[in-house]
Amino acid sequence: MQAEIITIGDELLIGQTIDTNSAWMGEQLNAIGMHVHQISSISDHDGHIQSALDDALERSDLILITGGLGPTKDDVTKFTLCEYFDTKLVKNQEVLDGIEAYFSGRGIPIMEANRLQAMLPEACTVLINTLGTASGMWFERNGKVVVSMPGVPYEMKGLMTREVLPRAQKHFKTPFIYHRTLLTFGRGESRIAEQIADLEEQMHAQGIKLAFLPAAGRVKLRLSSSGEREAQVKEKVDVLFERLRERLSDIVFGEGKTEMEEALAAVLKERKKTIACAESCTGGRIAALLSKHPGSSSFFLGGVVAYSNDVKMDVLGVQSASLEAHGAVSETTVKEMLLGALKLSNADYAMATSGIAGPDGGSERKPVGTVWVAYGSREKHFAVQLQLGSNRERIVSVATLSAINLLRQAILEGKV
Amino acid sequence: MQAEIITIGDELLIGQTIDTNSAWMGEQLNAIGMHVHQISSISDHDGHIQSALDDALERSDLILITGGLGPTKDDVTKFTLCEYFDTKLVKNQEVLDGIEAYFSGRGIPIMEANRLQAMLPEACTVLINTLGTASGMWFERNGKVVVSMPGVPYEMKGLMTREVLPRAQKHFKTPFIYHRTLLTFGRGESRIAEQIADLEEQMHAQGIKLAFLPAAGRVKLRLSSSGEREAQVKEKVDVLFERLRERLSDIVFGEGKTEMEEALAAVLKERKKTIACAESCTGGRIAALLSKHPGSSSFFLGGVVAYSNDVKMDVLGVQSASLEAHGAVSETTVKEMLLGALKLSNADYAMATSGIAGPDGGSERKPVGTVWVAYGSREKHFAVQLQLGSNRERIVSVATLSAINLLRQAILEGKV
Repeated sequence: MQAEIITIGDELLIGQTIDTNSAWMGEQLNAIGMHVHQISSISDHDGHIQSALDDALERSDLILITGGLGPTKDDVTKFTLCEYFDTKLVKNQEVLDGIEAYFSGRGIPIMEANRLQAMLPEACTVLINTLGTASGMWFERNGKVVVSMPGVPYEMKGLMTREVLPRAQKHFKTPFIYHRTLLTFGRGESRIAEQIADLEEQMHAQGIKLAFLPAAGRVKLRLSSSGEREAQVKEKVDVLFERLRERLSDIVFGEGKTEMEEALAAVLKERKKTIACAESCTGGRIAALLSKHPGSSSFFLGGVVAYSNDVKMDVLGVQSASLEAHGAVSETTVKEMLLGALKLSNADYAMATSGIAGPDGGSERKPVGTVWVAYGSREKHFAVQLQLGSNRERIVSVATLSAINLLRQAILEGKV
Repeated sequence: MQAEIITIGDELLIGQTIDTNSAWMGEQLNAIGMHVHQISSISDHDGHIQSALDDALERSDLILITGGLGPTKDDVTKFTLCEYFDTKLVKNQEVLDGIEAYFSGRGIPIMEANRLQAMLPEACTVLINTLGTASGMWFERNGKVVVSMPGVPYEMKGLMTREVLPRAQKHFKTPFIYHRTLLTFGRGESRIAEQIADLEEQMHAQGIKLAFLPAAGRVKLRLSSSGEREAQVKEKVDVLFERLRERLSDIVFGEGKTEMEEALAAVLKERKKTIACAESCTGGRIAALLSKHPGSSSFFLGGVVAYSNDVKMDVLGVQSASLEAHGAVSETTVKEMLLGALKLSNADYAMATSGIAGPDGGSERKPVGTVWVAYGSREKHFAVQLQLGSNRERIVSVATLSAINLLRQAILEGKV
């Protein structure tokens, strides 16, 4: 079964917005066994939307459209689809009630333009958007399906997960596809490939596809296979997945969609331990990750972002002698930051970072990308020096993940 | 003059790679007055490349292709173009010399597959890639142009800047296109639309296109127009842009690509002032934004992430009586947090947040989405209560931007 994605919006064509929706949608469609044939970004223009739909429907079975559903004049998708499917707009009371509740819940006066968002094409199945005011629309014609969704990423994701993907699976009777993804941190793609060459051959022989998905510091290994018999497909993937996990046990931090901070959270919750952090170069990113998920207040107590040396000394208790003798980016300083965070918060464990994120501030002895990470408890703590290249954004994000991973591993190994 | 972008690569269709090339290319094309009609992402498959080219050439004058030029078997773009333009591969000595120098310079043994990258279509103008081994190719047919470039972003950007854009400007005598984008925060798209309905009509009458681009809490308003005479186009857009800015002055925080934290940074740098923050529900996001850009250490001293009440009391000096009487999410507490951050950091200004990000922790009096934000200096500070809906991610991100914006406005207005 073939799918296409059409993203609508002039902002995509002039480079104002990077289209991140398509990649997410492509991944989701793949996961349910729909092959994505093409992604097209087009303008908010009725003629263009119609011709893009003509082209896509000629090639593919399922067309997912995002964008152009706002309440303003430049949003023409709904009207264009109405014309395309030769239908008229009718009021949807459930949607209208939802829109009115949305506005009253926020204490914002509702406008006529918002009420008009409840006028929807008669010929479509309305997909209720619980996260915004633009509804999803599901059209069918000759067995093919066209779905329109808002372009706001979290609204689109909500609609995809709750409505579009389950409906598409049912409508297209997609073959059973089974994926398992192993998550690793701290080793490059080619070194991993070398290390698992024999397993990769076994997978190949059994019709299991292995994909390497690299992201900052991490490599995800996704195994997938499809077939008629669910139990059989699952079993052969599971066996090789476990072999892979064993082979790479020193770098595996989880599976599926687990984020690094969730892996640490699980370890902490299980042991009923708490943490805190002291951040210099990561500037709040560790805290932001640790507090990202619901329920994080059960283990995350807080942190100090000590960007200036004064804050390092006055708040965290770093010794001025340490800063003078070793500099802010040093083992001594980062350990003192760690102890400061532990003392202030009374947490069981902490992490601390201090590094040179660049582009300025590097020297020959401590080039941009030098980051010290400390982790552990008051009694047992460690520090390591990392070299994380020269890209500011990457340095900060890999330093953040490294700190979280180092603490996670140390707890699991009983080192701290 | 109309352009299209075709990005080639299976990794784009399965969501493994987000296509960031297209946005950059679109922006560059727009800047030289080429209107980007469509962006298409397709697979590494000769039939698909040919049909995508057929479609694009029917609609547009300039087609930019990226990807599929590597030395491995799955890269078919060069061979497909050779067939498409009915030509044959010939050795390009200059390119071969470059490839050999590239490998010897890196001390890597050269492979036959790399040497074959110097075999290029006879019918094209070869565009020398000084940053890699895959050359650019410029084909012309009936006045229309097809350009192929490697998909590696920095190689593509090098070729675009040095070769493709100057040649395109010369080849197509393009009209001038002019964009200006006004950035607003804190008011919905439809309310803004209502407020500027008369200006929107004036724009329409003058051939100026207005686009509303909403993101969490923000709405960008982009005006664009094109024409032969640069000065005339600029003037009519500028006049209406200034009227728009005036009409929306209470919610405008910048123009162009400025981020909210950059708008605050500019205000602080100009006044040589420093800031700090105390965060509960935003959990480090304010600090992470403030430290995101190079040079932020000149104004950002640090912050405290006070997730637990103990950290609020022990580090920030929040009174236990305040927490007992009013709770953590209250005007009293958030102001005490603010004062704590100011005292600890000695900063001129600070921001503080305390709220219920959900999904749990809400009550009838303080539902999920209730956030208190304090901002100001030791002498003059204020606090406001916000209601930010029920989506955890959105609550945190809008609270973060609100805090930054409130402080920015207060400084500009001389309130703090």
